[in-house]
Amino acid sequence: MDHDLDLSADGAALTAALVDIASVSGDEAPLADAIERALARLPHLRVHRTGNTLVARTDLGRQERVVLAGHIDTVPHAGNFPATLNPERSILTGVGTSDMKSGVAVQLRLAADLAAPSRDVTYVFYECEEVEAERNGLYLLSRSAPSALSGDFAVLLEPSGGVVEGGCQGTLRAAITARGARAHTARSWMGRNAIHAAGEILDVLRSWTPRCPVVDGLEYHEGLNAVAIAGGIAGNVVPDSCVVTVNYRFAPDLSAAEAESYLRSLFASWEVSVLDVAPGARPGLTAPAAAAFVAAVGGTPRAKLGWTDVARFAELGIPAVNYGPGISEIAHTPGEYVEVAAIGDCERRLRSWLTA
Amino acid sequence: MDHDLDLSADGAALTAALVDIASVSGDEAPLADAIERALARLPHLRVHRTGNTLVARTDLGRQERVVLAGHIDTVPHAGNFPATLNPERSILTGVGTSDMKSGVAVQLRLAADLAAPSRDVTYVFYECEEVEAERNGLYLLSRSAPSALSGDFAVLLEPSGGVVEGGCQGTLRAAITARGARAHTARSWMGRNAIHAAGEILDVLRSWTPRCPVVDGLEYHEGLNAVAIAGGIAGNVVPDSCVVTVNYRFAPDLSAAEAESYLRSLFASWEVSVLDVAPGARPGLTAPAAAAFVAAVGGTPRAKLGWTDVARFAELGIPAVNYGPGISEIAHTPGEYVEVAAIGDCERRLRSWLTA
Repeated sequence: MDHDLDLSADGAALTAALVDIASVSGDEAPLADAIERALARLPHLRVHRTGNTLVARTDLGRQERVVLAGHIDTVPHAGNFPATLNPERSILTGVGTSDMKSGVAVQLRLAADLAAPSRDVTYVFYECEEVEAERNGLYLLSRSAPSALSGDFAVLLEPSGGVVEGGCQGTLRAAITARGARAHTARSWMGRNAIHAAGEILDVLRSWTPRCPVVDGLEYHEGLNAVAIAGGIAGNVVPDSCVVTVNYRFAPDLSAAEAESYLRSLFASWEVSVLDVAPGARPGLTAPAAAAFVAAVGGTPRAKLGWTDVARFAELGIPAVNYGPGISEIAHTPGEYVEVAAIGDCERRLRSWLTA
Repeated sequence: MDHDLDLSADGAALTAALVDIASVSGDEAPLADAIERALARLPHLRVHRTGNTLVARTDLGRQERVVLAGHIDTVPHAGNFPATLNPERSILTGVGTSDMKSGVAVQLRLAADLAAPSRDVTYVFYECEEVEAERNGLYLLSRSAPSALSGDFAVLLEPSGGVVEGGCQGTLRAAITARGARAHTARSWMGRNAIHAAGEILDVLRSWTPRCPVVDGLEYHEGLNAVAIAGGIAGNVVPDSCVVTVNYRFAPDLSAAEAESYLRSLFASWEVSVLDVAPGARPGLTAPAAAAFVAAVGGTPRAKLGWTDVARFAELGIPAVNYGPGISEIAHTPGEYVEVAAIGDCERRLRSWLTA
C-alpha cells in the first residue's frame, strides 16, 4: 500500500500519520517511501536516498548550514500501535510518538514550509537507529558520503522534553558466557548446570551501583542491564552453556576502550565477547555554534542519558545537540506518548531560529 | 538413503550400525525403516508399525508372554557422532551407545535368533522417548492399542549397567516466569529488569538440596534443574519477562500431583506453568514375575533414577524392570560410551532366560 503524507496537517496529525506507518528497525521501507514522495513535491529541496535513509537540502548559498536529523525506525510494538489521541486532544499515545516520530514530524513541517530559511538546512531522515551500530543509516552515510552531512551545527530531534540536551552516553553490548558440563537431568550431579552458574552473572548485575559523574557541568547516569539471556539444550539435559547479553550505558568521561576494559574487569570470571560499541560525546555546549542555538531556543541545558547520533556528528567534528518534543523517560515503554503542545512548541522555536 | 542392518553381526557392530543412522527425537524415520526391513525378513515374527514405532511378536501359544522394549531415539548430538570403537575394541563411543542403541541391538539379536523361545516375546522399538511425554511412542501405543503391549512381565533395555534396576523416578517440567517492566536501557531505572529478577529463581535452584528417600528398600536421588532460560526483547530494552524452564526428577514416593504441589510451593513467588509430567513407579520387585526374572539374571537390584517407561507398564498393570547394557551415568554426555563386553553379557543372560 502506498501511504500519502500531508505535510500541511498539524504536528500531532502528522505525527500520528507517521506512527501509523509501522517502521520497526529493518522494516522502514514503506515509511521511507512515503517521506520520499512528500519531499519530492517540494521544489526548494534536493533529495537523495540511500537505502531507507533520505537527505533533503536547501541550496541558497547561505553563510551557515545546519543539519536537522532524526531516525524513522522504532523498537518493536508493545500493544501500542496504531497511535491514539486522547479525548482532550492533548496527548498522543503509541509506539514512536516520543522516540521519535514527533521530531520527524517537526522536521517535515519545517522542510515543507521554509523555502528560504536564513541558514541553509540539511534534513536527514535515517534508518536503523534502534539496533546495532553497523546498520545505523547515519553511520552508513558518515562512511559512504560524509559530505552529505557537512554543516556548522547539527540538531538531533531525539526526545529531550523540549530542553536542549548536551552530549550523550555511550553504549556497549557484550555477551557474557557461563560454562558448565552437560549431563542427563536424571543424574544432574554428574554435570554442572550452566544456567545455574549464570546466576552469578545476574548477581553482579543485581548488586551493581550506577556511576553518576559530572562532565563539563552536566550530570550523567550510567546503566548496566541484561537485555537477553539464552541457555538450554533439551528438556532432560543439564545445559553446558548460558549466554547473558548485557548493555552498558556509560558516561562520556569514559572512552569506548575504557568502557570495554571496565566491563571485562567486572566480568573477569567469564568469557566476555563485545558485540558492538558506540562512544558517547561530551556536552560541548561551549562551542560557538552550540551556544548560539541554546541562546536562541532558551532553557537550561541538561545531560543526555540515551546514546544518540550526537556522537556521530562529534566524530565528524560538527557540534551537535539533542532537542526534540518527545519525552525520553517513557521511550520504549508500552505507555509511550508525546504532548501535543510540545510538538508545536518545538516547531515554533526552531522556525524562529531558522528564519531570524 | 536406505540403510541395511545385518542382525547376524556381533552386538558391538550392530550397536555401531544403529548409532550411525542418526535418530534424534522426531527424526527416527530412517532408523525405523531400517529396523522394519530387518524384522520383515524374520518369518517367526509378526510386525506392526505405527508412526516410527514397531512391534514384533512371536505367537507360539506359550503360557507366558514377556515384553522387551527400547526406544530408538537419542538426544541431539554433542560432537559424538558417528560411533567409534577404541583400539582395544573394548569400548564403543558415540551418541546413544548407552542410551540406548546397545539395548536395541540386544533386542534385535534376540529377535533374529530366537525362533522358538520358551516364553512368547513381544519386541517393541519406539520413538520420542527423549522429549515430552505426549510424543512418546510407547505412550501413544498404550493409548491407541494397549493390547499390543499386553504381557505378564516387561523388560526395558534402558542403560542399567547390567544390573536390574527397580522402579523409576518421575519427571515434571514447568515454566517459571519472572515479570518486570519494560523501559529503554538508557534509563533503566524507569523499568524493572525481568532477567535480573529471574536471578531469584536461579537462587532457589542453586540452594536446593535433593531428597534421597528409600522406597521399598531401594534408595532414590532427586534432581531439580533449569533446562532452559529465555528472555530479552531488543538490545536496548529492559525486558519485562524471563522464563526459566525447570525439570524436577522426583522419587516414586511422590505422586505426580504431589510433585507438582511441591514445585508450586517452592516457586510460590512466581507464575508456574506445568509443561508435562510423567509419574514414577515404585520398584515392585516383590511381584512374582519380577522376582523370577531377577533370580534368573542374577545380581543385586538397585533403584532406577532416570524416568523410564517402566512407569508406563506399571500404569497398564504389567510388572516391569530396567535391565540393559548401557551406563546411565554417562548418558546424554559428550563422552557417552558402552562397554562391548556388557552388550554380549546382557544378550547372553536374556537369551538363557528366554530359552530355559
